Amino acid sequence: VISAGIVGASGYSGAELFRLLRRRDDVEIRCLVAAASAGRRMDELYPEFNGPGARVLEPLETGTLTGLDVVFIALPSGQAMNIVPALLGTVGRIIDLGGDFRLSSPAAYERYYGRPHTSSHLLPAAVYGLPEINRDVLRNASLVANPGCYPTGAILALYPALVGGIASPEGIAITSLSGVSGAGRSASVEMSFSEVNENARAYRIGNHQHIPEIQSALSRAAGTDVRVSFVPHLVPLTRGIYTTIHATLARPAGTAEILAHYREFYRHAPFVRITERIPELRDVYRTNFCDISITIDPGTGRLIILSVIDNLMKGAAGQAIQNMNLMFGCSEECGLN
Amino acid sequence: VISAGIVGASGYSGAELFRLLRRRDDVEIRCLVAAASAGRRMDELYPEFNGPGARVLEPLETGTLTGLDVVFIALPSGQAMNIVPALLGTVGRIIDLGGDFRLSSPAAYERYYGRPHTSSHLLPAAVYGLPEINRDVLRNASLVANPGCYPTGAILALYPALVGGIASPEGIAITSLSGVSGAGRSASVEMSFSEVNENARAYRIGNHQHIPEIQSALSRAAGTDVRVSFVPHLVPLTRGIYTTIHATLARPAGTAEILAHYREFYRHAPFVRITERIPELRDVYRTNFCDISITIDPGTGRLIILSVIDNLMKGAAGQAIQNMNLMFGCSEECGLN
Amino acid sequence: VISAGIVGASGYSGAELFRLLRRRDDVEIRCLVAAASAGRRMDELYPEFNGPGARVLEPLETGTLTGLDVVFIALPSGQAMNIVPALLGTVGRIIDLGGDFRLSSPAAYERYYGRPHTSSHLLPAAVYGLPEINRDVLRNASLVANPGCYPTGAILALYPALVGGIASPEGIAITSLSGVSGAGRSASVEMSFSEVNENARAYRIGNHQHIPEIQSALSRAAGTDVRVSFVPHLVPLTRGIYTTIHATLARPAGTAEILAHYREFYRHAPFVRITERIPELRDVYRTNFCDISITIDPGTGRLIILSVIDNLMKGAAGQAIQNMNLMFGCSEECGLN
Amino acid sequence: VISAGIVGASGYSGAELFRLLRRRDDVEIRCLVAAASAGRRMDELYPEFNGPGARVLEPLETGTLTGLDVVFIALPSGQAMNIVPALLGTVGRIIDLGGDFRLSSPAAYERYYGRPHTSSHLLPAAVYGLPEINRDVLRNASLVANPGCYPTGAILALYPALVGGIASPEGIAITSLSGVSGAGRSASVEMSFSEVNENARAYRIGNHQHIPEIQSALSRAAGTDVRVSFVPHLVPLTRGIYTTIHATLARPAGTAEILAHYREFYRHAPFVRITERIPELRDVYRTNFCDISITIDPGTGRLIILSVIDNLMKGAAGQAIQNMNLMFGCSEECGLN
Repeated sequence: VISAGIVGASGYSGAELFRLLRRRDDVEIRCLVAAASAGRRMDELYPEFNGPGARVLEPLETGTLTGLDVVFIALPSGQAMNIVPALLGTVGRIIDLGGDFRLSSPAAYERYYGRPHTSSHLLPAAVYGLPEINRDVLRNASLVANPGCYPTGAILALYPALVGGIASPEGIAITSLSGVSGAGRSASVEMSFSEVNENARAYRIGNHQHIPEIQSALSRAAGTDVRVSFVPHLVPLTRGIYTTIHATLARPAGTAEILAHYREFYRHAPFVRITERIPELRDVYRTNFCDISITIDPGTGRLIILSVIDNLMKGAAGQAIQNMNLMFGCSEECGLN
Repeated sequence: VISAGIVGASGYSGAELFRLLRRRDDVEIRCLVAAASAGRRMDELYPEFNGPGARVLEPLETGTLTGLDVVFIALPSGQAMNIVPALLGTVGRIIDLGGDFRLSSPAAYERYYGRPHTSSHLLPAAVYGLPEINRDVLRNASLVANPGCYPTGAILALYPALVGGIASPEGIAITSLSGVSGAGRSASVEMSFSEVNENARAYRIGNHQHIPEIQSALSRAAGTDVRVSFVPHLVPLTRGIYTTIHATLARPAGTAEILAHYREFYRHAPFVRITERIPELRDVYRTNFCDISITIDPGTGRLIILSVIDNLMKGAAGQAIQNMNLMFGCSEECGLN
Repeated sequence: VISAGIVGASGYSGAELFRLLRRRDDVEIRCLVAAASAGRRMDELYPEFNGPGARVLEPLETGTLTGLDVVFIALPSGQAMNIVPALLGTVGRIIDLGGDFRLSSPAAYERYYGRPHTSSHLLPAAVYGLPEINRDVLRNASLVANPGCYPTGAILALYPALVGGIASPEGIAITSLSGVSGAGRSASVEMSFSEVNENARAYRIGNHQHIPEIQSALSRAAGTDVRVSFVPHLVPLTRGIYTTIHATLARPAGTAEILAHYREFYRHAPFVRITERIPELRDVYRTNFCDISITIDPGTGRLIILSVIDNLMKGAAGQAIQNMNLMFGCSEECGLN
Repeated sequence: VISAGIVGASGYSGAELFRLLRRRDDVEIRCLVAAASAGRRMDELYPEFNGPGARVLEPLETGTLTGLDVVFIALPSGQAMNIVPALLGTVGRIIDLGGDFRLSSPAAYERYYGRPHTSSHLLPAAVYGLPEINRDVLRNASLVANPGCYPTGAILALYPALVGGIASPEGIAITSLSGVSGAGRSASVEMSFSEVNENARAYRIGNHQHIPEIQSALSRAAGTDVRVSFVPHLVPLTRGIYTTIHATLARPAGTAEILAHYREFYRHAPFVRITERIPELRDVYRTNFCDISITIDPGTGRLIILSVIDNLMKGAAGQAIQNMNLMFGCSEECGLN
C-alpha cells in the first residue's frame, strides 16, 4: 500500500486528488493538509464526500508528512518552493502540481511568476511530469513538477509535429479556452458567476506564466529554440481546456501521414487519443484523456491542431496520479478510468 | 417616416430588428413576415413583446411589401436570392442579413454555401454593408448585403492593419468564439442546452462560408490576395463573437503607433472603440459597438488583435439598422444607443 | 432638469441606475459616489461605459451631495442608516435601495439584519417604494425605501389575491429562484462561477431578511397578520427572480374571475402584466416589467401564482427610477422602456 | 455474469446505463438497441466512448434480446408498452425507465400521458422500482417500472414524514427545479441553449405526468388519499433535480426528532443521506445519492423538506442499476460508487 499525503487538499486540484485516490485499495491517504481550512472536515467544503469515514483537514506541521511514500502539493504557485526543501529526504516522492519546479531557469521563473525563486538549487533535480514525453525518467524521480493545464494541452498537441519535422518551429499561434476552475477555489470579483456568465475574455497576453513552460518543451521537441504566441481565454465553463493551434507545415505532408505519425508517437500513451473528428470538451469531461485532431486548412495549407483536456484531470490531479502510477510501478491507468 | 418590413421576423435577427425599430418614431414597421409562424402573434414567440399593440406575423405574399421604403430580409441563407429579384424595383431599398449577396463570385457562393446561386446577375449590384469601410457607397445602395457576424469582427480588427501595411497579408490566423444565437432559432440536438453547456468545440475548419467573405474584404484592404486560416468555435454563450487574431508585422511598429493608426482610421466610426485594455464580450453586450485591442507579443513580436461584438447587434440587426440610417440620411447612431 | 447623485455607483444596482439615468435628458447625474473604488473611472469597472464623457467615482464627503434634487443610495444594507440622517434636509429626496428603511419595526430589523438600527427614529417617515400599492403616498415622500427583489416579486403576485379575499392568509408557500447578481458585486467563493454553475441551492430558510418585508405588505393587503413560509434559491443565472407561490383559495373562484380581478387591480400599473401563459424570466429580462400568471391546480384546487422580474430592474434600479418618476411628476414609465 | 441489453441506448439515460455497466466485470452488455441511430457506433454519438471495443447500435428486431438476463428499456414513454408483451418470458427481467408501467390505473395513464395504454393487462405485474420503499418485492420482480426523476426526489423526501404521521397529507406544496437532460436527447427550440440560458420557467402545472406517480406512492405512505400541488421548473442546468417541499406538521415535532425518524427509516438505504446542512445539487452530481434536509420554518412552524438528486443517476440510470443489483443478488451499491 502506498501511503500518501495531499498538501492543499481544500482546493479544487487537491479535492480532485482526494476524489481519485480514496477509491483505490493500493493507496492510503494518510493526511490531508490545508491552511485556512485546517480543522474543518473535507465534507464541509465538498459535501459530496458526506458519508462514513469523514476526513479532517490538518495544518502543515513539522513531521506530519514524514515517512509518507508520496506527497502531492496542490498549492498556489510560490508556496511549494518554501516547503519542498524540508520535505525532500523525509518523504519518498514529491509531486508538485504548482508551477515552482517546472522551469529550469530561475530567471524565467522570476520574470513570469513575479517573484524570485527561493529553492533554485533544486530545479535541476525536478523532472517535468508529462508522462507522454518523459515516461522513463519519471519512474525514478524524487521530485516531479506536474505540468500546467495549458502546457499539457499545447505540448501534447504540438510535440509530435515538431519532433517529426512536420510543423515549422516558426509562427506557431496558440489560442486556448479555459474553464474557471483553473483559477482555483478562491474569492474574487473577476471569477464570480455574474462576471463570467455570458462573457468571454482573453488575458495575460504575452506574459502568461505558462509560456516558458510550453516553449521549453517544444524547443526540446524541435531541437531548436521555439517561441510561440499564446493567447489564453476565460470562457463560461467550470472545467476544460480547449487548445486551437495554427502552424505552418515545414514540409509537404497530408493529413493521413500526419495522423499516422501522431498515432505512432503516442502508441504507448493510454490517455492520448488521436481523433478524426473535431474534438469537444465533453469528450474528455472528468476523464484523464487528451483528444487531439489534425486538419490541413484547404485554403492556406496551414496545419490546424486541436486538443481538449479536463483541466482538473489531465491538466492537474489526473496527470499527477498518472505520474504516481509510473513512479510506483502501478499500471499507468490505475484509478483513472 | 420610413416604412419598413421585416421578412423572417420570427428568427433571432428578425426579432432584434423589431425590438430596435419599434422604439423609433421615424420608422413605421408595416409588416412582419414569417413562414412557419405566419398567423401567430409576435408576443407568442417572444413574450417580452407582450403589451398593447400586439403584432401578427404574415405570410409572404405578392404585394405585401410593395411600396415599402425598406425591407429587411432576415432569413437563413439561400432564401433571399429567390425573393430579391421580385422585390427589387417594387420596394425602395433591400437589406439582406443572410449570405446570399455577400460574395461577388457565384462560384465561391456555390462552393461555400453548397448550392448554386439563383440570382447571380444581381451580385454586381449588391453593396457589402460594412459601414466602416463602405460608408459612402452604402448611402445610395438599393441592395445591401449585411455582413456575417464572424466577418464583421474579423474585418474590423484587421482592415486598418492591412491598409496601413502594418500586418503582413501572409500567415494570418483567426480564432473566433461564438454564442449559440448565431446559429438562429431552430431545433437541433447540437444546439440543445445539454450539448452546449459545459462544452466547447471548433467546427467547419477550412470550409466555413464566412471565409471567402473575410478574405474578400481583407484582400481589398491589402491590395493583394489574402488568405486566412479561420477556426470558429461554439462556446456556452447566447450572444457574442470574440475574435482573436495572430498576425505578423509587415514592418517594425510599436503599439502606440498602431493604436494611433487604428484611431485615425476609425475616427468617423461611432461604433468602433479602440481600447487599451483587453476587451470582454460584456463590454459590447446588447450594443452595436465593436471593441478592438492591439498587443505586440513580447516574446515573438507578433501582432495580436482582439475584437468583440454582439452577434445579433453589430453582427446582424444593429448593423442592418446602421446601414438603414446611412441609406435614409438619418444619424448613423439613431436607435442604436 | 433633475439633479441626481448615486451613492454606491460601483455596485450592480448603482451601475444599473447610471445606465438608465444617463440616457435621460431630464436628469443630470451630478455625482457618482463609491468607497473602495473612489478615484477610478466608471468605465474601468464597467467597460461598456467606455466612450466620451468618462465619469470618475468620488468618495463620500460632506457636502458632495448637498443641494441635489435626488440621491439614490445603492449600498449594502446597514450603511444607509448611517448616512441618511445627515443627508435628510440637505438634499431634495432620498431613495434607498438597501434594506435599512423597509421595516417599520426596529426589533424586526435587528432580528433579521443581525444588527441594531442606528436611525430608528426615521423609520416612521420612510415610505415603502412599491408604486403599485403606494403610488399616491410616494409622490410626496422625502425618504423612500425601495423594496427588496424577492419582496417585489412576491408582493405583486399575492397582493390582489389577499386584498380581494381570494387567497387565504394561511398556508402561503413561497419558493423563489434568484440570479447571482442579487448578491451584489463582491468577491466570495460561494458566488464564484465554479460553485454556481451546474448547481442550485436553497439558503436562509426561515430567517431571510426579506421575510418580514413580505409579511408586512401582505398583512396590510389581508387586513390581518400574514405569515409565509419562504424558501429562496440560488440558481445559475446572472439576473432574474422567479417566484412560485402555492396558496389556498379563501372562497370558490375560477381562473377567469381571478385574472379579471388582477387586471382590474393593476389597471393603472404600467409595469405589471397579467399573462395567460406561464411566464419565463426572459420575458422580463432587462425590463422593468413584472409578469404574473394565475393557475388553479386541477388536482388540489389550490391557487398557483407565478411572477417574474429582473432583479436589477423592477427588483432594484428600475423600480427606484419608477419611484423617482412619481416623486418628480415625470411619466411613471419615463426612461424605463 | 449477467447478460444485459439496453433498448434506447442512444438517449441520455441509455448512454448513462452504458457508461455505468461497461465498467462492471459481472455484467456483459450484449446488445445496444436504437431506432434512428441503429448502425452507428456508440462513440459517434458520445465521443467519450472513443477507444478500443467500439460498440455498434442495433435495430430492434425479433430475437435480438432473447435469452438475456436483463433488458433495460430507456425509450420515451409510450414505446415500452408496445415492446414489453413480446419480451416478457423471452428475457429474464425487464427494467423500464419510462413511464408506461408506473401507474396502476390505465385511466390515469391515459389522462396524464395523453394516450390509451396498450398493455394494461401487465400493469398489475409491474413493480415500482424505488428500492427504498420496495426493496423486498423488487428482488423477485420480472417487470420493474423505474421511477420518474421528479417522483424519486419528491417521494424520498416525503415518504418517512407521511409514514410517521409527522406531515399532514393535506396541503403539500412541491416545487421542483430540473436540468434540461431530463427532457432527453432531442431537437427542440424550447430546449436550445439560446432559450434555456439566462432563463427559467415553470411548466405543465397541474397536469404533469409525474403527479399521479407521486400521489400514488405518498398515498401508500400516508394510508389515505394524498393530493399534492406540484410545480416543475426548467432551469439552466444540464443535470439535477432540486425539490423544495412546504408541508404542514400533523403533530408537534422538533427537527431533531424528525431527523432521527428519517435516519431510522433510511438506515438500510445506502444512497439516501439525511443532512443537517441545506443540500446543493453538486453534492450529488453524477452520483446515485439522494440528499435530504429537514427544516421547521420558525415563523410558520411549517415543515420544509429539500431533496437533491442527479436526474440521470438516482433519477434514471443509477436507480435502474440499483434495481438490477437487488434483482440479481448483487450488492445494492455495486457499480454505483
